[in-house]
Amino acid sequence: MAERIFGHIPGYPEGSLFESRAELRESGVHRPIQAGISGSQTEGAESIVLSGGYEDDADDGDLIIYTGYGGRNQSTGRQDHDQPFSHGNRALALSKQNGLPVRVIRGSKHDSRYSPPFGYSYDGLYAVEGFWHEPGRSGFEIWRFRLVKIPQKVTAGQGVREDPAEYSVARRQEMRVSRIVRDSAKARKIKALYKHRCQICGTRLSCPAGPYSEAAHIRPLGAPHDGPDTEDNILCLCPNHHVLFDNGAISVAKDLSLIGADKDDLTVHRHHHISLRHLAYHRKHLAVVPDFEREASV
Amino acid sequence: MAERIFGHIPGYPEGSLFESRAELRESGVHRPIQAGISGSQTEGAESIVLSGGYEDDADDGDLIIYTGYGGRNQSTGRQDHDQPFSHGNRALALSKQNGLPVRVIRGSKHDSRYSPPFGYSYDGLYAVEGFWHEPGRSGFEIWRFRLVKIPQKVTAGQGVREDPAEYSVARRQEMRVSRIVRDSAKARKIKALYKHRCQICGTRLSCPAGPYSEAAHIRPLGAPHDGPDTEDNILCLCPNHHVLFDNGAISVAKDLSLIGADKDDLTVHRHHHISLRHLAYHRKHLAVVPDFEREASV
Repeated sequence: MAERIFGHIPGYPEGSLFESRAELRESGVHRPIQAGISGSQTEGAESIVLSGGYEDDADDGDLIIYTGYGGRNQSTGRQDHDQPFSHGNRALALSKQNGLPVRVIRGSKHDSRYSPPFGYSYDGLYAVEGFWHEPGRSGFEIWRFRLVKIPQKVTAGQGVREDPAEYSVARRQEMRVSRIVRDSAKARKIKALYKHRCQICGTRLSCPAGPYSEAAHIRPLGAPHDGPDTEDNILCLCPNHHVLFDNGAISVAKDLSLIGADKDDLTVHRHHHISLRHLAYHRKHLAVVPDFEREASV
Repeated sequence: MAERIFGHIPGYPEGSLFESRAELRESGVHRPIQAGISGSQTEGAESIVLSGGYEDDADDGDLIIYTGYGGRNQSTGRQDHDQPFSHGNRALALSKQNGLPVRVIRGSKHDSRYSPPFGYSYDGLYAVEGFWHEPGRSGFEIWRFRLVKIPQKVTAGQGVREDPAEYSVARRQEMRVSRIVRDSAKARKIKALYKHRCQICGTRLSCPAGPYSEAAHIRPLGAPHDGPDTEDNILCLCPNHHVLFDNGAISVAKDLSLIGADKDDLTVHRHHHISLRHLAYHRKHLAVVPDFEREASV
């Protein structure tokens, strides 16, 4: 199976119409022929189809309250048991946790004014801003997901080629809460390399949807620093050390010893080449060095 | 002196013109009669004036690279020593750290196409997205700040009355990086009450600009939860525990004991009344309870 693509599928812009699930599958916009959620518990969800299957969905256009998977009786189609926190539900929770964009497709059977008259329409990228559980109309527990439209202008051109420039624009626009971090494929790779353990303190946060860590850019992205979104410019940190690193409390010496931390050395995986040039940039410009601190405390 | 106001000053919308610094002071849009930065090291910076004083400022309209305070010879006005990380510079760094909006005023002497022909113009709210130091043209170290315009539509109506609804909109638009958190006055009050110590683990992150913590809403803001931005719905947490709490890994029982954490009890200040109703909401809907976890691990 092809690699999972988070973001637009090249050649299928927002508004693309499809006659059938088979056509959707072929395009790569939504690959499962039956399941409403395409994703995995370890990577996150890449796309969902609103097809009227669930009585509890609520569709307000830019805001969708999406009902999770499962809990339905195969023959009657009615909810007759609780939905599990697994499979597609957990994949969507992971997309929320890691700030991955989800492709939303509406089918004609989906009961909303935004549904196409026939077939399926690809309606763009949404951010999963939250997930929770509650009793559905049936009385059984369901998982629900708050999906908010990502403005099209900031996602145009996104897709397989993850252009950091586009990302930095996307970041500015998409963020709704402090925790939605939009990672590039490179950032995800570094985080996986360390199994989400902080390179400074070794902490790995265990969230229900999976382990959590953050990708910290050593030389910041965007003007005037214009650091690259490359593996040698990314560290895997816990949120606490990400804050300390970004605010100049902690830096890294060229021998990879830590400056301003209570640990001695940065943990570095043998397959992770870190740019000494970018580390030097962080020390020279981002770190708040002792003599500045002394002046501050005057 | 009146309380510091972060955001628009009611009665003075973006585009307001002022004849003099005295008029600016009277309006409250920028209160110091001389200083270019209005703020304090403990609260952050509320406003800055671009008046052409510094040779190193760069003004691109929506993006301003602002040069910090100090380092200049009083008589010649030239940089002849390093700028300190203190006073206004540290206040701006704190505004970045805590995601506070800064009012930007341009003076006619400020050399840019965005300057008014005479007097001063209030040009709206900017987010401080980063701070760093580098040698200025003079060769002496200067502090620099990246200021990015906050779209006017999302800040309209903001000011003293901090409407959480407006905030949730503002959040969605302003965020560029994961760490810019926009706090309301109530959130700032709770964080100060705990002196930025995490109510779960007691951690306080020491950043160069000051201690860092995050305000976590127990019952989330925004539809469908519509939790209030009130002190009884806010916890002071470190970023790590904020992630765990928001993702349902940790919750709080009605006796304030912790669920899913390695500590026993939530630390609660005697002046902090926490709503048991909101805690119950978090347990009921946001927490991922053991039986869901079991199903997930199947």
